[in-house]
Amino acid sequence: MKTINIILGGAGFIGSNLAKCLKEDNEEVFIIDDFSLGKRENLIFLDHEYIFEVDASEKNSLINCFSEMQTKREIYDARVWHLAANSDIQQGVSDPNVDFNKTLLTTFNLLEVMRHFKLSKLCFASSSAVYGDKGDENISELQPQLEPISNYGACKLASEALISAARETHLKDVSIFRFPNVVGAPATHGVIFDFAIRLKNNRNRLTVLGDGTQKKSYLHVDDLITAMKIISDYRTKDRLKIFNIGPADTGITVSRIAELTVEHIAPGALIDFGRENRGWIGDVPKFSYDISKLQSIGWTPHNDSEHAVIKAICEIWEQLNDNH
Amino acid sequence: MKTINIILGGAGFIGSNLAKCLKEDNEEVFIIDDFSLGKRENLIFLDHEYIFEVDASEKNSLINCFSEMQTKREIYDARVWHLAANSDIQQGVSDPNVDFNKTLLTTFNLLEVMRHFKLSKLCFASSSAVYGDKGDENISELQPQLEPISNYGACKLASEALISAARETHLKDVSIFRFPNVVGAPATHGVIFDFAIRLKNNRNRLTVLGDGTQKKSYLHVDDLITAMKIISDYRTKDRLKIFNIGPADTGITVSRIAELTVEHIAPGALIDFGRENRGWIGDVPKFSYDISKLQSIGWTPHNDSEHAVIKAICEIWEQLNDNH
Repeated sequence: MKTINIILGGAGFIGSNLAKCLKEDNEEVFIIDDFSLGKRENLIFLDHEYIFEVDASEKNSLINCFSEMQTKREIYDARVWHLAANSDIQQGVSDPNVDFNKTLLTTFNLLEVMRHFKLSKLCFASSSAVYGDKGDENISELQPQLEPISNYGACKLASEALISAARETHLKDVSIFRFPNVVGAPATHGVIFDFAIRLKNNRNRLTVLGDGTQKKSYLHVDDLITAMKIISDYRTKDRLKIFNIGPADTGITVSRIAELTVEHIAPGALIDFGRENRGWIGDVPKFSYDISKLQSIGWTPHNDSEHAVIKAICEIWEQLNDNH
Repeated sequence: MKTINIILGGAGFIGSNLAKCLKEDNEEVFIIDDFSLGKRENLIFLDHEYIFEVDASEKNSLINCFSEMQTKREIYDARVWHLAANSDIQQGVSDPNVDFNKTLLTTFNLLEVMRHFKLSKLCFASSSAVYGDKGDENISELQPQLEPISNYGACKLASEALISAARETHLKDVSIFRFPNVVGAPATHGVIFDFAIRLKNNRNRLTVLGDGTQKKSYLHVDDLITAMKIISDYRTKDRLKIFNIGPADTGITVSRIAELTVEHIAPGALIDFGRENRGWIGDVPKFSYDISKLQSIGWTPHNDSEHAVIKAICEIWEQLNDNH
């Protein structure tokens, strides 16, 4: 019997890549998405009867959706992937309701629905943003004092907390992925997407928010999906499988990303930098991950931050030109 | 000018003790409570114009309430104490909506209201329940892997996360108290209250849920209030003042509490124990706190767990007999 996967937020950047990969592995995939950021064109490999347009912040709509799925397949053993969130961190800083509804309330509702339908396998897309600003520290899963500095990070940490409590009642197999900055296509936002759009509009000059010294690690979505599958399949006695996912390096700077983007898209364009080392409130300026826990269960990233960025620049540039 | 205090959940057990203490210190006190667990009779020392009956899970009601307070006093410099929560942990296990609305949504709404009214001083009643079940470990504030096992603990941790993000935007002075089991009067629930009620109904026999080996530390509410005031006044460069509050000992067992309660209320009554060492889902069976951080800023508890329990038994027995 085929493994059944239900992906909340499955039409978005990471969700659609995951769905495609699971389909290629010959698994069954149901998608739930509100299509606010996700797009149907990201799911061309999937029959429309597997795709549900539902706002998961409405509990009753979510219940109805699971009931309908159940008429199509026996879903009690399904693996549920919760990737629904407001992935636009800046938007959540200006209006906390966005993260509360799209990132936190979706988790609360999904947990209730899983209890109702006796589903016990959950894979949750958390974030490095749960840690807050830890300066130069190499962050492991044992990092104390998690102090998120954005509502996005806060709602991810809050979701982890609700999931932890649900593990005590109805969940049995829980994976929590603390995502890094993930790059690739189809992108909807993020530094590379932003630079590419700017260069598409002005091939002579690229204006960068911040002074370009922000250094972060970036993972290509292909490496991310491999890690998610390894963690999800991993058997352990730990009550929660919490893993940092990220590249093995300490990251690259925004100025290097700007250079690489210019090189690929508009060679010779000038780059202007701002003065601050933090682009906007809630952004963590520096950040590096300890991924030894994930490496110890057999995962290795194929791309370091720089190669992930280069690959993503090509894919995003292709995406932007396909759309026109 | 008098310091102004706004206490959300100020008519409850801890809130009313805090309010009384602040009034005795000649400070001004406003109370907001939905009076679901809190009672007006706990606030006889306060004029009714300082008491607002508001359900803080309704954001607009909360905004109106702060507007009304502002017509009475200039509140921009007020210290806001957030003690509103569903304090009945078992209820939250059977219906997660209770904790979500009363413990988490109240925090989200309060943070929005504080932003609206430009209030920047917040004191938040968090809980040892944020840590989850750590077995015999002596839990400090630097404990890694916070994995709450109740929705109550999850919603407290989720609230801390939202507060951490708000510290980045509009909050300036944030105290987070991780409460232990707190005892004293006026009680509404808890092991002593429960035993006292049972003994009031049957003076010959006390039936105890669980095998009585659960060992926890208990703090008397008088010591708690002193700690809250010291932390609130403490100046530091830390972005959040997070403190465990608890007695210096490793706690006492449920069987000892049963003995002490029987001794005071119904000497000679038989005590029956259950078989499990966990009373109910979501309960942390063992638990001990490292309070050195709090001791280092000058606080010492006057009562150890046993004396706190003895004092509380007397007070609660008096409370139960006053009510009849």
